[in-house]
Amino acid sequence: MVQLEEALQGLDARQRVCIDELREWVRIPSISAGAQEDSAAALGRAADFALAQCEGLGLSAQKVQVSPDTNPLVVARPASFSPQKPTVLIYGHYDVQGVDNPRSAWTCDPFGAEEKEGYLLGRGASDNKGPCFAHLKAAQALRQAGELPVNLVFLIEGEEECGSRALSQYIAGGGLEGFGPVRAVVISDTSMYGPDRPSLTLGLRGILFFQVTVRGPRQDVHSGLFGGIIHNPNQLLVRALATLHDGEGRVRVPGFYDQVRPLSRREKVIYDALEVDEAAYCRNLGVQGLTGEPGYSVLERRWTRPTLEINHLSGGSPRTVIPARASAVISCRLVPDQDPGPIEAALQEYLRAQLPSGTEVEFGNRHSSPAYHLDPDHPLVPRALQAIRTGFGLEPLLTREGGSIPIVTQIHQRTGAPVLLVGLGQITDNWHGPDERFSLRDFHRGMRSSAALLCALGEA
Amino acid sequence: MVQLEEALQGLDARQRVCIDELREWVRIPSISAGAQEDSAAALGRAADFALAQCEGLGLSAQKVQVSPDTNPLVVARPASFSPQKPTVLIYGHYDVQGVDNPRSAWTCDPFGAEEKEGYLLGRGASDNKGPCFAHLKAAQALRQAGELPVNLVFLIEGEEECGSRALSQYIAGGGLEGFGPVRAVVISDTSMYGPDRPSLTLGLRGILFFQVTVRGPRQDVHSGLFGGIIHNPNQLLVRALATLHDGEGRVRVPGFYDQVRPLSRREKVIYDALEVDEAAYCRNLGVQGLTGEPGYSVLERRWTRPTLEINHLSGGSPRTVIPARASAVISCRLVPDQDPGPIEAALQEYLRAQLPSGTEVEFGNRHSSPAYHLDPDHPLVPRALQAIRTGFGLEPLLTREGGSIPIVTQIHQRTGAPVLLVGLGQITDNWHGPDERFSLRDFHRGMRSSAALLCALGEA
Repeated sequence: MVQLEEALQGLDARQRVCIDELREWVRIPSISAGAQEDSAAALGRAADFALAQCEGLGLSAQKVQVSPDTNPLVVARPASFSPQKPTVLIYGHYDVQGVDNPRSAWTCDPFGAEEKEGYLLGRGASDNKGPCFAHLKAAQALRQAGELPVNLVFLIEGEEECGSRALSQYIAGGGLEGFGPVRAVVISDTSMYGPDRPSLTLGLRGILFFQVTVRGPRQDVHSGLFGGIIHNPNQLLVRALATLHDGEGRVRVPGFYDQVRPLSRREKVIYDALEVDEAAYCRNLGVQGLTGEPGYSVLERRWTRPTLEINHLSGGSPRTVIPARASAVISCRLVPDQDPGPIEAALQEYLRAQLPSGTEVEFGNRHSSPAYHLDPDHPLVPRALQAIRTGFGLEPLLTREGGSIPIVTQIHQRTGAPVLLVGLGQITDNWHGPDERFSLRDFHRGMRSSAALLCALGEA
Repeated sequence: MVQLEEALQGLDARQRVCIDELREWVRIPSISAGAQEDSAAALGRAADFALAQCEGLGLSAQKVQVSPDTNPLVVARPASFSPQKPTVLIYGHYDVQGVDNPRSAWTCDPFGAEEKEGYLLGRGASDNKGPCFAHLKAAQALRQAGELPVNLVFLIEGEEECGSRALSQYIAGGGLEGFGPVRAVVISDTSMYGPDRPSLTLGLRGILFFQVTVRGPRQDVHSGLFGGIIHNPNQLLVRALATLHDGEGRVRVPGFYDQVRPLSRREKVIYDALEVDEAAYCRNLGVQGLTGEPGYSVLERRWTRPTLEINHLSGGSPRTVIPARASAVISCRLVPDQDPGPIEAALQEYLRAQLPSGTEVEFGNRHSSPAYHLDPDHPLVPRALQAIRTGFGLEPLLTREGGSIPIVTQIHQRTGAPVLLVGLGQITDNWHGPDERFSLRDFHRGMRSSAALLCALGEA
């Protein structure tokens, strides 16, 4: 472990340099979600930055343009794979969310990369440039102390905030083949359990997302002239949607819970031991109390139970009309072993059955992805925990997350490898919101953890 | 009746002149709803046009600027009221709807005042410049044949399409006083029952309009992170709204129907005798069938029964969020003798009761107006019918309308006079839509009817 010791010393010694380099990356406004005209150039520069970092590791790196209208992928791999070493794939993204959410709510320049009270401020600092950069710098430190302990592959995309289209096509097209068997995938695009509470995330919920539209008259019509003689799509939709949950918050769609794998006793014990400050949740969210499916703890409801949420309602206009159509966007969070396909079919059938026969109804804008789950008894789990322990000097936790990262599931399915989700940011880092920030202390501890993890994954 | 005969001959002889003058008025883009920057000048010119017409009748006419940010009223009255004559008030409006609904759907210049196949095309041709001008020209024809048979007051506003604020303030401030007792108010801002089916409209439904907003977390939050542990305002709203109607379309709010005055046997017989082409309704609206409150005919449901419609739904965004708020705009059409106040209170109480205790809910954007109704046995009804018969050469019908014109109720309440609603347009004239049009034949027959009506109202 001389190499790791040297690498950790190097990272400790070069903290300032690493921060300054990260600031350079954060200053590039590589917005992909709701992109502006000049975003393409910035996205290109942010990709070039990642490319140069990968080249600095001695990897064979290239920008891959999957199709003309997608943002380039940065793919870096050893010039030749060593059969003595396992392959490890690290995923990250160089694209960032927009800053108009709203722009006036920012108290700093979103691309100023200002340092303040131990944080780096800026769009993308925590989601995902900072955590992604921690891995690049960890690999660099290991390289400076010797040979990389694994066949290292970096996959850094530029469309995470807008659907990962290019990467998804790249993977579907066999882009992950030729790496030999992948021992593990490492991703830092989740969160720590809290400040000074580093964690290995064992699971992500899947997602089923779609829009339902109920149609009525050909165009919006006058509610005085026609109120009382035709169906109102707003009312039909509302009546159907109101039946989706029972009075206590359970989803009423037949079969919705049928495939849910019960939480193992082992995991339940782990999550029950985690402290939850319900008052803090309420304070942060601005709600009077928590609610949800009866019989499950707050963390079980957030992490291990499927949900159905109406994300969007729209129909008509704030005038005296009977609208031509009313729509709802619905998303379900899915858990192991729910298959999105049958659940989507059951939901559509259920909603149709709530509408008067003959009602014109359409389903659209759909996408879905199953949940991801790593068994806490997987042999790499202790290695990952030890690496985090080494990096942070703190005892790591085992957790899950309630969100969904479809690309994680896709990479897992294609490589067959366990995905080690080592979050370096905090829920309070304001991802997608104003004043996004990233703890520079966690950046440093994250780089150390990554170096330790790559060494641990390189061991027999 | 020599004067009327002369006036009718004059109107017949001057058809072309009347049309050309009306085209001048229609060419002025006096848009008040969603007004553009240059609308103020056009509104002023349209008001001046009406003013000059009134002055031509020998009336004392003025533009009244009720407050600096409202459009001027045109108020014309006799220089001195004759105690031998009754006072008759004619209401109309010179402002028009916008043309972006959508602009591309127009097949003619909205302000070109083109004549085509017996129609005058243009925004405001039917709503309301044409019908209003019919009264001005009828009065002119009578004036040319002698003295006006009544103390004639014209009240022509410029904000009918955006809330009648100035006129409402003017009336509330006593603007209708000093006219002596008003025998009748005449308004042509309703529709005929159909082509060649002129009618006297006995009633308009009232309205109760408001927005309900349910609040949840302080801002939209991530449905992955928080789905399953907090209330979703979209879902709370939907569950509450779904209880507003029973399965057959009756409003379930306690007391909603309590004050409804049952339809008189007399009126029921009148409306039952009117033919209704349900297939044509369906074809025009683009729906598969009609529906509504059981036990009532289509016309009863449209004209004589109260309704509750959800006009607008909005909440969240088409992303994976739990929204901070969800809103619905609801409007009820009210019938005699429903009082909007208690119904609004009952609705608010009912909706609150459908939400979990502690839910933050707000009601806003409210406005209301009771229904207007004229007894078919009112002594002026036969005179009005005879005038329409004279003007059109057709047997007029007695009808109601389902829409609401709050200013009609307000004028009626202030003057205590019956309002004679003599529609000259058609439901198919595309009020507020593209290619608005007005039948020139009905314009002419309307002028004749108005002349006959003013004479009839002048009789002892």
